[in-house]
Amino acid sequence: MCELLGMSANVPTDICFSFAGLMRRGGGIGPHRDGWGVAFYEGKGVRCFHDPNPCHDSAIAKLVESYPIKSQNVICHIRQANVGGVSLANTHPFTRELWGQYWAFAHNGQLANFDSTKGPFRPVGDTDSEAVFCHLLNTLSQHYEQPPDTSDLIQTLSQACQPLLEHGVCNIMLSNGDWLFTLCTSKLHWITRRAPFGAAHLSDVEVSIDFTEHTTSADIVTVIATEPLTNNEQWNACQRGEWRLWQAGETRMSGSIKR
Amino acid sequence: MCELLGMSANVPTDICFSFAGLMRRGGGIGPHRDGWGVAFYEGKGVRCFHDPNPCHDSAIAKLVESYPIKSQNVICHIRQANVGGVSLANTHPFTRELWGQYWAFAHNGQLANFDSTKGPFRPVGDTDSEAVFCHLLNTLSQHYEQPPDTSDLIQTLSQACQPLLEHGVCNIMLSNGDWLFTLCTSKLHWITRRAPFGAAHLSDVEVSIDFTEHTTSADIVTVIATEPLTNNEQWNACQRGEWRLWQAGETRMSGSIKR
Repeated sequence: MCELLGMSANVPTDICFSFAGLMRRGGGIGPHRDGWGVAFYEGKGVRCFHDPNPCHDSAIAKLVESYPIKSQNVICHIRQANVGGVSLANTHPFTRELWGQYWAFAHNGQLANFDSTKGPFRPVGDTDSEAVFCHLLNTLSQHYEQPPDTSDLIQTLSQACQPLLEHGVCNIMLSNGDWLFTLCTSKLHWITRRAPFGAAHLSDVEVSIDFTEHTTSADIVTVIATEPLTNNEQWNACQRGEWRLWQAGETRMSGSIKR
Repeated sequence: MCELLGMSANVPTDICFSFAGLMRRGGGIGPHRDGWGVAFYEGKGVRCFHDPNPCHDSAIAKLVESYPIKSQNVICHIRQANVGGVSLANTHPFTRELWGQYWAFAHNGQLANFDSTKGPFRPVGDTDSEAVFCHLLNTLSQHYEQPPDTSDLIQTLSQACQPLLEHGVCNIMLSNGDWLFTLCTSKLHWITRRAPFGAAHLSDVEVSIDFTEHTTSADIVTVIATEPLTNNEQWNACQRGEWRLWQAGETRMSGSIKR
């Protein structure tokens, strides 16, 4: 299984602390040796780093860990390949442009016999994950020529997720830079940090941070991850079928998809 | 004006030497302070680095200069903004997916009153350059549902470039990972290096390289740049309107567009 890490914040925030925990699982203490990637939104732009090599000894991962890139929406993924070989083309997050917006997507799980919907978006690599991403964007582009109201969009999106449940495990993160959509079909945890901030300690490596030194009292930052990344905080577990739309660090909409 | 740098090679080759020369022009000795970016193809995947900050003091540029990423097709760009503010969304190269292939594009020049063709590809930022890229991809996607023969594709592409000449200066680099297309309307130079290899010395910084130490006798590597990057080699100047299709380090097709 792969691991996902996402962030939604109301101010541009770096993800160095959480990334440091996750990358220890990338071929270091974990089995996820098959590449990693991260997408940071900055304004309408998105900055991606991809590496098909294990992240625990990646020069690019070291840069991302040490160079504080500030963003309000981040999607990160470390991979243990099941469907699709180890290659740059198969390394998440995947990105596409729709309606003049960049969309980024990462997936944890495995889908059997899933073919993407036909449409303008086609997979470049051969993962089930990229086929899911293309299915979602093809569905949205077939429904709307222009970006619709977010509530309409999310209704269409959650309906497009429904058939995925019949094909296997599908924990996903999807963003258009304005919001972050998460779907849990097996495992996903989240924590929202806000004032009064405290200290946090990573589970995977001897690193602590005192968020009071890095935040203002107005900051709201939610971190979403496959497994909790810290061992001294209370993380929330998503239910099976639960989706959430995160914006500025808060849940703006949520719902449930049943098989 | 911005500066372009491209590479086409018959074996995966790093671009560290040429990049070192180019990045000295990125706010160091040159006026190109408004960001830089590079796209490296690896198989069907593409790895991009973008930074809206000057490249001569960019941590990401230092990584790219020191970490030899090997590729057969590379597009690099340093920016002096004219149309469109300094932001990540306006930083070249731009990428899109068409026919299950990643396409990358960078532009040097300035086009007056150029609006992109309508179609599925829409600009995210507000540069004339990204509008040109969307115009080219919309034209190709309107002509072909599947990737056509390269000769048909290049004919359509060069015809789609024709109206650009009426709007201003448009030196471009476009790649689908299989080949690199260049168009010169004002300034573009190239050099093909092959056995017997020799030494080269950068114009902008005291750095030399002896290519015999880094190549085999079968290697063919073409570097294309706005201005020659070395001062001890003979670079070829492209003519106005001249386009070339580079593949595996060689010109596979060429032609000319007249206004």
